[in-house]
Amino acid sequence: MSEGVITPQRIDHLGIAVASLDQAIPFYRDLLGLAYLGQEEVDSEQVRVAFFRLGEVKVELLEPLSSNSPIARFIEKKGEGIHHVALKVEGIENELQQLSKAGIRLINQKPKSGANGAKVAFIHPKSTLGVLYELVEPQFK
Amino acid sequence: MSEGVITPQRIDHLGIAVASLDQAIPFYRDLLGLAYLGQEEVDSEQVRVAFFRLGEVKVELLEPLSSNSPIARFIEKKGEGIHHVALKVEGIENELQQLSKAGIRLINQKPKSGANGAKVAFIHPKSTLGVLYELVEPQFK
Repeated sequence: MSEGVITPQRIDHLGIAVASLDQAIPFYRDLLGLAYLGQEEVDSEQVRVAFFRLGEVKVELLEPLSSNSPIARFIEKKGEGIHHVALKVEGIENELQQLSKAGIRLINQKPKSGANGAKVAFIHPKSTLGVLYELVEPQFK
Repeated sequence: MSEGVITPQRIDHLGIAVASLDQAIPFYRDLLGLAYLGQEEVDSEQVRVAFFRLGEVKVELLEPLSSNSPIARFIEKKGEGIHHVALKVEGIENELQQLSKAGIRLINQKPKSGANGAKVAFIHPKSTLGVLYELVEPQFK
């Protein structure tokens, strides 16, 4: 068993940027047949999100609520598609400190409030070979 | 429980395009601490791939072996990052037929040979709101 700087347990969710939840939900629900878990607004990111279950991973569809949303800028620049991969961790504050010490560039030095009351923080893709990774510590284990 | 046109069981792997496995492997092994599963060449895609374990999902790093590789073209156009999401299915030939009947555009009408002896086929991202989904039926259940 290898020992890393941090210890992600599994993928919590895949974040997928979509222009419209109303257009995207039928694909995930009716085509892929995934179980729909619900919706919520995340003010800090100016998005409305819908969750689906796919094995142990959740699919999070993100629709921008304003042109200031990071998701609106992402869609404008790159089009709809995969936005981030969220890794489930315990002790997110300590994990962020360990990454920082190892020279990894963080977007959020400290966790902020995400969907479902989780603590979340993003790692800068410059330090991760182009993938936007989010650390997430769920409110309920 | 909702019923879909197809029935993906879980995410088999995330495919991530990297310029160099030698540069990328230390991030996944030493920073994220993921268990390294091995490497192989996939001739049909002109790539060398390395696999890691992250919960029930595998991370597949894809390095292009020639400028003709779809992964070389992807990196040239979009940079390193997430390339595709592979969904584990049973009866891949039938799943492809069902998608086709439902009007979903396929890149591969019939499965081809992927890593680890699996049967694989890609769905066109025009039909999936921008995400490149692969169906994969592993050789061993």
